[in-house]
Amino acid sequence: MRVAWNRLIRFVATDGRIVRGEPILPSPDFDLGKTTESTKLQAKVIVGEDLYDETGTTKVSDEIVTVKKLLGPLTPDDVDILRCVGLNYSKHIREAGRTPPPFPFIFFKPTTCLHDHDEDIIIPRIAQDDQADYEGELVLVIGKDAKNVPLEDALNYVAAYTAGNDVSSRKLQRDPKLAGGVPQWGFSKGFDTFAPTGPVLVASELVGDPKKLLLQTIVDGEVRQKEYVDDLLFDCAYLVHYLSQGTTLRKGSVIMTGTPGGVGAGLKPPKYLVPGTIVEVVINKIGTLRNGVKFA
Amino acid sequence: MRVAWNRLIRFVATDGRIVRGEPILPSPDFDLGKTTESTKLQAKVIVGEDLYDETGTTKVSDEIVTVKKLLGPLTPDDVDILRCVGLNYSKHIREAGRTPPPFPFIFFKPTTCLHDHDEDIIIPRIAQDDQADYEGELVLVIGKDAKNVPLEDALNYVAAYTAGNDVSSRKLQRDPKLAGGVPQWGFSKGFDTFAPTGPVLVASELVGDPKKLLLQTIVDGEVRQKEYVDDLLFDCAYLVHYLSQGTTLRKGSVIMTGTPGGVGAGLKPPKYLVPGTIVEVVINKIGTLRNGVKFA
Repeated sequence: MRVAWNRLIRFVATDGRIVRGEPILPSPDFDLGKTTESTKLQAKVIVGEDLYDETGTTKVSDEIVTVKKLLGPLTPDDVDILRCVGLNYSKHIREAGRTPPPFPFIFFKPTTCLHDHDEDIIIPRIAQDDQADYEGELVLVIGKDAKNVPLEDALNYVAAYTAGNDVSSRKLQRDPKLAGGVPQWGFSKGFDTFAPTGPVLVASELVGDPKKLLLQTIVDGEVRQKEYVDDLLFDCAYLVHYLSQGTTLRKGSVIMTGTPGGVGAGLKPPKYLVPGTIVEVVINKIGTLRNGVKFA
Repeated sequence: MRVAWNRLIRFVATDGRIVRGEPILPSPDFDLGKTTESTKLQAKVIVGEDLYDETGTTKVSDEIVTVKKLLGPLTPDDVDILRCVGLNYSKHIREAGRTPPPFPFIFFKPTTCLHDHDEDIIIPRIAQDDQADYEGELVLVIGKDAKNVPLEDALNYVAAYTAGNDVSSRKLQRDPKLAGGVPQWGFSKGFDTFAPTGPVLVASELVGDPKKLLLQTIVDGEVRQKEYVDDLLFDCAYLVHYLSQGTTLRKGSVIMTGTPGGVGAGLKPPKYLVPGTIVEVVINKIGTLRNGVKFA
């Protein structure tokens, strides 16, 4: 599918408005996640309610504004739900001591998890004891309602890609004393701010084949995760196809495709998120999603 | 909290409009779920966008219309997300061969699961092989944004109660060949039509103490589930309190509180949903949520 923009950012303009726009890149390979006020990044304002409109109602206007502060491209009101995939990169599956699942393991995050680029992740009190963890992920955005989609048609429903961080609380997720006998993939990953996305939505046409993307997660300057999306056990097309069985994936809903090896819980010794940690999820063609960490 | 109505129904009026209204009960104990066209049920039209408004903007008007067909009170656009509790009635926990969990086991259903009263549940092809099952539940609706709510204040965030059916696919949920090594509580319960709710929202003030409610699920005339809500391991107030930790429960979001013993999978031999099955979830003070079953 083909939306009205090539790249979509959401930002505070120098005139104080919060708007969405098509950025005018200072250089062809400029990383939008590195935008600061001194970049004086300019963007053409996008007008129209429907971000994924294909009918010409939503447009990139001629009004050019300057970016004061970049936010995340998506807010809770833009997204129906976040569908997430556990155990989808082979190295991460080995790291977790598991065998590859026959079908994607699916869980959900509520849209209240969505969080802006360049804002601190807030760890709530019940997840502050050596358990908060990052998961860098490629994120795809469904651009039109999808149900029972054939595999070969699946990528036509993807409007755009971005980077995301599936922030997780490992004890609430796995510790029998806290989770009971069943792993808690919902509650433990569902706190406010636990799904930063950004820094930009890149139209799927510009991305081309998502398998060629390289995903990296850098924590306090150290590369912890580094894997080509090609290593996905269930790729983007298969996920849209599989998830749409008997299920309407609504326009604006999000799929977080899973995380590769190198999460904090898998390190020896483990390294969890603490106040002041800086997590960067970097994907070529998309840029750097950066977030700090605070304890509530 | 106190909303503008006592009972809220959504229906096709005899003039063809789909509206919400305050029903004028033919008798004090009339079961709204038994409404048919010949009932000639009348209702005062509710005007206003915000169903849970407490400021007087949403009103029960003086316009009286007649109900041609009752629908469900909630659509996907009214609800943020459905939070569900597994293993919350002690008999059901024993039936599943489990020990009581130390904390609520939480999973989510997307809002596309919501389905009208008196419409068939549609079982998708991948869930048609002896696995589709009912779970009758008490459902509560959050009426104002709730975050970090103290236990003693929790019920003040509940605008209304209704009945719901957490339709489930047992093989996709539990069979290692289909689910992998982790029980799949998200995908297996998340298909379109898998969360019928209704027949009416009853304001929490009218319900009083939810523990006194009696929940029954009747399948093809046979009582399969019958339990007082008082048997909940984690009660309504605790659920709102627990779930709101670090998490905004948005206005309009829904909590399905769990199901008692007597689901189809727990019977000997098991009895699953097949085309033509009629499932009724009956809660006193709320009425009967009735749905048929079809295979897609």
